[in-house]
Amino acid sequence: MHQRPWRLTRNPYPPIEPLSADEIESIHQASLTILEEMGIRIMLPEALAVFRQAGADVDDGLQHVRIERGLIDKALATTPTQFTLHARNPERHVPFGGNWTAFGTVGGAPNVSDLDGGRRPGNYRDFCELIKLSQSLNVVHFHCGYAPEPIDIDVAIRHLVATQAYLTLSDKAIFSFTFTPQRMQDTFEMVRIARGVSAETMMREPSFYSIVNTNSPLVIDRPMLWGIIEMARLNQILCVTPFTLAGAMAPITLPGALAQANAEALAAIVLSQSVRPGAPVIYGGFTPNVDMRSGAPAFGTPEYIKSALIGGQMARRYRLPYRSSNVNSSNAPDAQSAYEGAMSIWGALMGHCNMLAHGVGWLEGGLVASYEKYIIDAEMLQTMAAFFEPEKVDEGTLALDAIREVGPGGHFFGAKHTLERYETAFYTPLLSDWRTYQQWSADGALSATQRANKIWKTLLAEYEPPAMDPAVREELDAFVERRTREGGAPIP
Amino acid sequence: MHQRPWRLTRNPYPPIEPLSADEIESIHQASLTILEEMGIRIMLPEALAVFRQAGADVDDGLQHVRIERGLIDKALATTPTQFTLHARNPERHVPFGGNWTAFGTVGGAPNVSDLDGGRRPGNYRDFCELIKLSQSLNVVHFHCGYAPEPIDIDVAIRHLVATQAYLTLSDKAIFSFTFTPQRMQDTFEMVRIARGVSAETMMREPSFYSIVNTNSPLVIDRPMLWGIIEMARLNQILCVTPFTLAGAMAPITLPGALAQANAEALAAIVLSQSVRPGAPVIYGGFTPNVDMRSGAPAFGTPEYIKSALIGGQMARRYRLPYRSSNVNSSNAPDAQSAYEGAMSIWGALMGHCNMLAHGVGWLEGGLVASYEKYIIDAEMLQTMAAFFEPEKVDEGTLALDAIREVGPGGHFFGAKHTLERYETAFYTPLLSDWRTYQQWSADGALSATQRANKIWKTLLAEYEPPAMDPAVREELDAFVERRTREGGAPIP
Repeated sequence: MHQRPWRLTRNPYPPIEPLSADEIESIHQASLTILEEMGIRIMLPEALAVFRQAGADVDDGLQHVRIERGLIDKALATTPTQFTLHARNPERHVPFGGNWTAFGTVGGAPNVSDLDGGRRPGNYRDFCELIKLSQSLNVVHFHCGYAPEPIDIDVAIRHLVATQAYLTLSDKAIFSFTFTPQRMQDTFEMVRIARGVSAETMMREPSFYSIVNTNSPLVIDRPMLWGIIEMARLNQILCVTPFTLAGAMAPITLPGALAQANAEALAAIVLSQSVRPGAPVIYGGFTPNVDMRSGAPAFGTPEYIKSALIGGQMARRYRLPYRSSNVNSSNAPDAQSAYEGAMSIWGALMGHCNMLAHGVGWLEGGLVASYEKYIIDAEMLQTMAAFFEPEKVDEGTLALDAIREVGPGGHFFGAKHTLERYETAFYTPLLSDWRTYQQWSADGALSATQRANKIWKTLLAEYEPPAMDPAVREELDAFVERRTREGGAPIP
Repeated sequence: MHQRPWRLTRNPYPPIEPLSADEIESIHQASLTILEEMGIRIMLPEALAVFRQAGADVDDGLQHVRIERGLIDKALATTPTQFTLHARNPERHVPFGGNWTAFGTVGGAPNVSDLDGGRRPGNYRDFCELIKLSQSLNVVHFHCGYAPEPIDIDVAIRHLVATQAYLTLSDKAIFSFTFTPQRMQDTFEMVRIARGVSAETMMREPSFYSIVNTNSPLVIDRPMLWGIIEMARLNQILCVTPFTLAGAMAPITLPGALAQANAEALAAIVLSQSVRPGAPVIYGGFTPNVDMRSGAPAFGTPEYIKSALIGGQMARRYRLPYRSSNVNSSNAPDAQSAYEGAMSIWGALMGHCNMLAHGVGWLEGGLVASYEKYIIDAEMLQTMAAFFEPEKVDEGTLALDAIREVGPGGHFFGAKHTLERYETAFYTPLLSDWRTYQQWSADGALSATQRANKIWKTLLAEYEPPAMDPAVREELDAFVERRTREGGAPIP
């Protein structure tokens, strides 16, 4: 089993930009008009109070907020342009911003599937197995939220059990759901224990993150508002990602859907920065279009690629780190899942996304976490990471001596230049099978998906839990035990 | 069965450029050194004579030619930057150059496969079926050479029978193999008849093309030299594509492999322009790396993406149209074939290739033309073509009125703005299935590859041959009959 080593990745290429600066500006201006004239519904009194305090025009009865452009400029003046997500293992810290790009796992899938067990509801066993798989895949930089959702764990203590699993089975950086403030406070304390640092250090060094979706069009509900407020209070990383399905929850035209998404994101940013100026925020783009026949979101389409690229343009206009996704609509980990994923990856990465959510494992529009898709995606992301490494042009790589040595009609297999380099010269695949048809047939003629099945099993068989100080482990378990005894964090 | 209409495609985005202008220049300079100091083996007396006449340093006994840089500058001064490949149907003409990008079929595959019949040697029946399929797929702009090779047709008359099939089953532009001058002369005459034009018009309006590979390292053999010379004499389009497999037929380092490829291409261009200054030439990039374990070429890898992009930089340095490919090493039309293909496509198209060879149908490193892969590739290429269409940002698409009409918490399904646009708003897939898991399962849970199988069968069932004047048909058939009686064009 060959993998590239764990490595942080920078994208050295200029982004692809479908719109001109003027066109980006007109989307920005449309968003300002939306927030000033139409406003947004804010479904939490505490958030309404923060908006009023910040100077917005608030109607408590209608739960309605209008935000004039000066407040938006003020908020955007305090957002940091780059920050680091700290993991419990310092070698796993992940920078967001600049031309850094980091890859996460699928998050939020209610179901899980693999070739042997088929499709089934999310559960704790699979949740743990996929954490192990994510830990084992070097190309995965961080975890996204719950893949799959462990619905066999009582919701009041699910965050405790899930976070305990993340922190013990993996040493990569983690995610917290936002449903109630208590959940984020519990995550804060658990990560603090796992990192072995003080609360002050945690406040200075963001050590988990969350993703907040708005309720498009132009609504932010209680759990999301709790998330925005509490993540800012705790100075942890908030990724604001309006899910603006063009033609359904947003206009059918991409500029309109993006203007609305942007308005919603800006409202969330004003709230975040009003709670704590300087709180770290990532600008999330997630604007697929609805399939007018099935009502389903369409991923990896021409519109999706454009929206991923334009989202990056908006994020850069605000000097915010950018989040995009590796997504597809396929019902199976087949060729469709691969090409829709590849199209999404190119849109995301050439849009200069810093955080690639759902980087490995997403299937079926996000309804399923697929074991086999983890491996297919890991191969694609490894390929992109290696593609981002600069090509050195010098006397040694121009190889005139080797060309002279070999001469017309020869071959380079035995050349000194080749022998010195052949072990590390080229990308070694994780999944791709380059053998002849005859060799491949003799070995069972397995499709890429069938081979992916064997690979994740090998990775899980070889998995070893990352080291954790027994005292830290004890403190963590004691915390979970106590908080469980206290009833966890029931959804109100 | 929904397809995008036939449409010529322009790439509006700047190319991705892995190397700096200085680095491109150092590859160029290395190529000049190769041609000046090491030279190239030229295995045809007639070609040696042309090189000598042009001023090169020729050793007839060793069949060796050294070319000094002045001759290269002179040749590059006469190559046209843009030209059109004329089809027998004027609506199918294809421009090469600028930011035009056109998609061809797989060419040169010795075998063919589909899910029902499995893998089998190339034959005339499949050859004709795949011409029909290429004719039926709107995203295909032109034919590449023989997919699969109809090996059940005697080689002396194969070009006659194959060209007759191309010209009657399709009205898209075609390819000619170069093995002997007679073959190209026969193709010239057959295309002339099909177009109903004079030989003078044919000379003014290139109406077929060929691809010449060099015999790397630094050899050009007889059939290829015949091709370069004869295509220039006939003023038809020559695509020069050194097949420089890094680590095998070229240095193991990409800059060296590209310098050697470039030297071989420049030698061919000098020969072409010495025969006819101004003869149309396309610069072909094809530098995969060898897999050091299996000896097979690796496609869709990080190195492959880079070589496709850098090849484009070289072509632009010389103001030549650029050819790249949609290639993969997979033994089945599965997820690997899709993601390796997608990576190759992005490398090719963001390298600003004008001619995408092997655009649809390539499998198994080019050893197989796959019916199902035609459909998978058509979906990817349609996606890219639609992605290349500009996004309009104006009052209508910014949709502020619609956002105002719907308001917070509503939906856009019934909005006037949606109803006016929903029929044409978004890309409609050919292959992707966006239905729910339940709908998809109830319909047989077919993988993308299985659905592709149904789609090509439907396309072939619905195929209608393009119109051809009966008199033209008669003349064409008579030509083939006569040339067959004469013995065709035996390989000497």
